[in-house]
Amino acid sequence: MAGGPREAQGPFVLWLTGLSGSGKSTIADRIYTRLKEKGIKAERLDGDEIRAVFPDTGFDRAGRMAHIARVGYLASVLERNGICTIVSLISPYREARDEVRQRCDRFIEVHVSTPLEVCEERDVKGLYAKSRRGEIIGFTGIDDPYEEPVEPELHIDTSRLTVADAEAAVMNHIASYL
Amino acid sequence: MAGGPREAQGPFVLWLTGLSGSGKSTIADRIYTRLKEKGIKAERLDGDEIRAVFPDTGFDRAGRMAHIARVGYLASVLERNGICTIVSLISPYREARDEVRQRCDRFIEVHVSTPLEVCEERDVKGLYAKSRRGEIIGFTGIDDPYEEPVEPELHIDTSRLTVADAEAAVMNHIASYL
Repeated sequence: MAGGPREAQGPFVLWLTGLSGSGKSTIADRIYTRLKEKGIKAERLDGDEIRAVFPDTGFDRAGRMAHIARVGYLASVLERNGICTIVSLISPYREARDEVRQRCDRFIEVHVSTPLEVCEERDVKGLYAKSRRGEIIGFTGIDDPYEEPVEPELHIDTSRLTVADAEAAVMNHIASYL
Repeated sequence: MAGGPREAQGPFVLWLTGLSGSGKSTIADRIYTRLKEKGIKAERLDGDEIRAVFPDTGFDRAGRMAHIARVGYLASVLERNGICTIVSLISPYREARDEVRQRCDRFIEVHVSTPLEVCEERDVKGLYAKSRRGEIIGFTGIDDPYEEPVEPELHIDTSRLTVADAEAAVMNHIASYL
């Protein structure tokens, strides 16, 4: 499991964590498409999609912890069935991500580390503006913590890399598993 | 989807619903083993195991509804990834089971219809006795409803069939999908 020796090849859980607007979903979509093109069994799990299935999940710490655990459990079941699973989820708490790591066989944590200022300037969904106006409370990076990974397998800062370069960096990292 | 024409072959969700002690898990284990022996990709989802991952799930109607939806979502994701998924879950509410049916491509509902008296006499986990003594409230079949399936794909009454015969009946039913 975590820290132990890994088998060279096999399915994995590619876990993209980072702030809203950091570029997680864009990268996840590209990697998923690339894997499918190669004929590899792959599944794409997106935090928002899964929240839609379980609308009662809150955004307080307990709600977020449960949400991360739920997505992690699903990812681990897919992994043990031979499916490369790509998760894009803010997943702001270190403890929750580490629990998922323990549950998975090959957990590849990608910190999409695009700086807050850049994410906020992009503000694709308008959520940072709402948060600054106080219309959303507990927004990650503004008034709720984002706990950076200590030793992620990969850092991707999309303010410094093009999407194509980010994709190449991830594909390069996972090449040994394929 | 439900009611529509099905493709002849492909992965499915085999959903065993019934009272506690009706024999769901026993049948599910046997079917899972048989599929694996045949080299078929299969996964076994058990309600109790998944509750252990999400310990905050309650046993009131909302909690049970959420639990059934969660297991159903997981089953549907596995199914769309080519994995025959076998679920054993009391899943007492018709509405919740029908929602799962809509979500899945090939949903095979098996009503493990062993009568309450027989389940209670077995009382493998001692839960019926606790319920009768009032130590558990909201126990399915005693003081919480079990809504029988209207048109399940299969009925299995383990008070009338041996385990081997129950297994054979299910295997016979799913043979066309394999």
